[in-house]
Amino acid sequence: MTIKVGVLGAKGRVGQAVVEGVEVSDDLELVATIGRDDSLELLSLNGAEVVVDFTQPDSVMGNLEYCIAQGMHCVVGTTGFTDERLKQVEEWTQQEGAGHVLIAPNFAISAVLTMVFARQAAPYFETAEVVEFHHPTKLDAPSGTAIHTAQGIAESRAKAGLGAMPDATAQSLEGARGALVDGIPVHAVRTRGMVAHEEVIFGAEGQSLTIRQDSYDRNSFTPGVLLGIREIEKFPGLTYGLEEYLGL
Amino acid sequence: MTIKVGVLGAKGRVGQAVVEGVEVSDDLELVATIGRDDSLELLSLNGAEVVVDFTQPDSVMGNLEYCIAQGMHCVVGTTGFTDERLKQVEEWTQQEGAGHVLIAPNFAISAVLTMVFARQAAPYFETAEVVEFHHPTKLDAPSGTAIHTAQGIAESRAKAGLGAMPDATAQSLEGARGALVDGIPVHAVRTRGMVAHEEVIFGAEGQSLTIRQDSYDRNSFTPGVLLGIREIEKFPGLTYGLEEYLGL
Amino acid sequence: MTIKVGVLGAKGRVGQAVVEGVEVSDDLELVATIGRDDSLELLSLNGAEVVVDFTQPDSVMGNLEYCIAQGMHCVVGTTGFTDERLKQVEEWTQQEGAGHVLIAPNFAISAVLTMVFARQAAPYFETAEVVEFHHPTKLDAPSGTAIHTAQGIAESRAKAGLGAMPDATAQSLEGARGALVDGIPVHAVRTRGMVAHEEVIFGAEGQSLTIRQDSYDRNSFTPGVLLGIREIEKFPGLTYGLEEYLGL
Amino acid sequence: MTIKVGVLGAKGRVGQAVVEGVEVSDDLELVATIGRDDSLELLSLNGAEVVVDFTQPDSVMGNLEYCIAQGMHCVVGTTGFTDERLKQVEEWTQQEGAGHVLIAPNFAISAVLTMVFARQAAPYFETAEVVEFHHPTKLDAPSGTAIHTAQGIAESRAKAGLGAMPDATAQSLEGARGALVDGIPVHAVRTRGMVAHEEVIFGAEGQSLTIRQDSYDRNSFTPGVLLGIREIEKFPGLTYGLEEYLGL
Repeated sequence: MTIKVGVLGAKGRVGQAVVEGVEVSDDLELVATIGRDDSLELLSLNGAEVVVDFTQPDSVMGNLEYCIAQGMHCVVGTTGFTDERLKQVEEWTQQEGAGHVLIAPNFAISAVLTMVFARQAAPYFETAEVVEFHHPTKLDAPSGTAIHTAQGIAESRAKAGLGAMPDATAQSLEGARGALVDGIPVHAVRTRGMVAHEEVIFGAEGQSLTIRQDSYDRNSFTPGVLLGIREIEKFPGLTYGLEEYLGL
Repeated sequence: MTIKVGVLGAKGRVGQAVVEGVEVSDDLELVATIGRDDSLELLSLNGAEVVVDFTQPDSVMGNLEYCIAQGMHCVVGTTGFTDERLKQVEEWTQQEGAGHVLIAPNFAISAVLTMVFARQAAPYFETAEVVEFHHPTKLDAPSGTAIHTAQGIAESRAKAGLGAMPDATAQSLEGARGALVDGIPVHAVRTRGMVAHEEVIFGAEGQSLTIRQDSYDRNSFTPGVLLGIREIEKFPGLTYGLEEYLGL
Repeated sequence: MTIKVGVLGAKGRVGQAVVEGVEVSDDLELVATIGRDDSLELLSLNGAEVVVDFTQPDSVMGNLEYCIAQGMHCVVGTTGFTDERLKQVEEWTQQEGAGHVLIAPNFAISAVLTMVFARQAAPYFETAEVVEFHHPTKLDAPSGTAIHTAQGIAESRAKAGLGAMPDATAQSLEGARGALVDGIPVHAVRTRGMVAHEEVIFGAEGQSLTIRQDSYDRNSFTPGVLLGIREIEKFPGLTYGLEEYLGL
Repeated sequence: MTIKVGVLGAKGRVGQAVVEGVEVSDDLELVATIGRDDSLELLSLNGAEVVVDFTQPDSVMGNLEYCIAQGMHCVVGTTGFTDERLKQVEEWTQQEGAGHVLIAPNFAISAVLTMVFARQAAPYFETAEVVEFHHPTKLDAPSGTAIHTAQGIAESRAKAGLGAMPDATAQSLEGARGALVDGIPVHAVRTRGMVAHEEVIFGAEGQSLTIRQDSYDRNSFTPGVLLGIREIEKFPGLTYGLEEYLGL
């Protein structure tokens, strides 16, 4: 038994990668690829069970309203979800016969797991720092993912009752100790040739633990999308973030 | 309120490190240090609530029988526990008023977490390999920890229904692809100057996840022992392995 | 003053990357792109000063004979050069007015430097091992580059009078200690998502030195080719390998 | 033929490690160990050919004056050498029959090679950054070694005519991009359990090169000291820094 998949935004770079990922998976069947000008009805006509949406903020809500009402599940990587939008989507999913929805800001499984493991490890180490590496054309430093990771570590430390980290630095060149995100130092390295990489370094007496994530390629979200397609049947309503699907 | 701690094997190298760890902890109070020739009664006389045992296989069972019966909890890093011994200890802990027992083969939190995270991550990646690094005077290759890690990954992959890993290797120098432990390649590097280090490398389309553990020093078990002392009150009976105490 | 560049094999994947690299360089001017069916005379007619050849073993010798005789310098990444072929090319370069030739098996500067530095470091460390990481569709293990690196280390150790490396391994799973290349252990890891990566790990008392090279992309040879184009005027005759151009 | 070695400051922690290193070396013979209250004449009386000085700034000049005049070579790790002191030592070494002198701020071969290789690699990469890792009780950030490494990279880039590194960062948390040392970003990570570690990361199109040095132990200077003892006969006069002895 295969799962019948429709892809919205199938002509875009991300959509194409999803299409390829579906096509090479024996348990998935591609039944519709929808571009900006195609009718959403092609999805239902072709019997799509799960619809993947990597489109634009201005079209995603319309897509979701239609698909959810038709009972099709939706795996969504489109950006721009405010709390208000999320609340609206949740309401749609609560109708009888509604499709399930997964909306995730990051589908790269290695990045999601790095954040999850960082939260889990944080209570057991005296120190924690984040170093991220990206290409030098990136506009923001540190990356959004690194900031989220640091926030997660800080929350986890606080919950465990850990105080400020030890740091005897008395003489310092400005910037050497990184940017503090909720008390966690974050360092941003910009290296030509690199894509997107993150390292979390925990230290305790006599030992350290390093969790490192490397994205070599913009296709790195594909395995996460395929996981979403395969598991969404089990997650009624709206799920935000891939973490829950990982059962962690 | 402090926890009153007694240390068995307090003169040994490991015992000394535990003694130091207890002494620098405000929430722990060292009430007895027991050498090979001292009476175990000093533990009860001094009101020890938790006893740490890093002694020898020939003395540990006697120590445990006494302490458990006295209602003292036991944190045990001594080796040589067979299934039979574990069963015996479990029986002792089931008497009324018995102390709790934690026996762990590895108290280095970074190593324990590496194994836990490796199991958690395994279902989400097509490939997994283990590389371990030790000093060149080590007798066995790969290390016991690396073998355990690989076994955990293999179990986790099997449970998730993953098959054999892709590997197109057609021409190979003997040994290049490592030792297979339940289908997981494990590589052992021997480097002068290193202590004990392990790296688990997971790969999926366009990305990889690396979990690395470094032990720089033989004191790396101390944080795990202190964690055991602090948490053992909550874990009645016998617990084997530090994983449960980590709540993961 | 710009250098006028012609590219042979300009339609191939590698040739295209070279074309792009030349086009974005202010000091280089692309004057001719030659495919399999184009006449070599276009190179001279357009005043090419340096010709880049990433073609096939069956065409490269004809290309070189023509270009060298015309006084054009040749930067060559085509494979299949036997000693006999190299000798022939050398003879051609010794004619009056002949062009200079650079033939290199690897134009990735990071890989070339890794080999150079590994040779330089080898005499100062008791132990040395090589770990290489590639995608799981690679046919050979270890990689040719890793074998070359190990051979260079072995030669450098021998020249310095170092004997066999310490290794107390007494119990071992088969393959755990890697493949021995001239006495140097080499480990090959196959990870989905990775491209081509190599790590050389040296150890001495209390310390280690790791040299790591990552190729994220098949364009990683471009900087080495551009370096060859810019420097070839200074290197008369035939040069084999990019090392000399690096002045190391 | 063995080399006869005397050790000044033999009771200090560093001196003891040197004594042990000499004792386990078949080609070296320990002939004198001198503490603060012992006479320097024991060195000459016992026929020391090379004297190792890890003492204090207030005693080293007297030690050197005596030893050099006696024709004994001196390997010196004591700190506090000003230009004036170096000039004085150089004068002493120019007398007839004078001993040779090696003064080095860092005897850890892995750290010295990291600096040497960083200088060599710098001209070939668009970007270069330094990340150093130390225990959280370190007072200065970044470390002196990291600053020196960055300065060497900057000099090497300037000599090669490279301009400023690309960096499109437009939005940044303060400190995220590290401290600039002569234009090279340097990041200082403070991790409990670590000792002293440095990583230099170079990037070019499609590739990166990472040189990493780990000191696990305060004995990491011993191999450099032993190298100095063995090679000093070949280096008349005063040599500053271990680099020249490495022939690089």
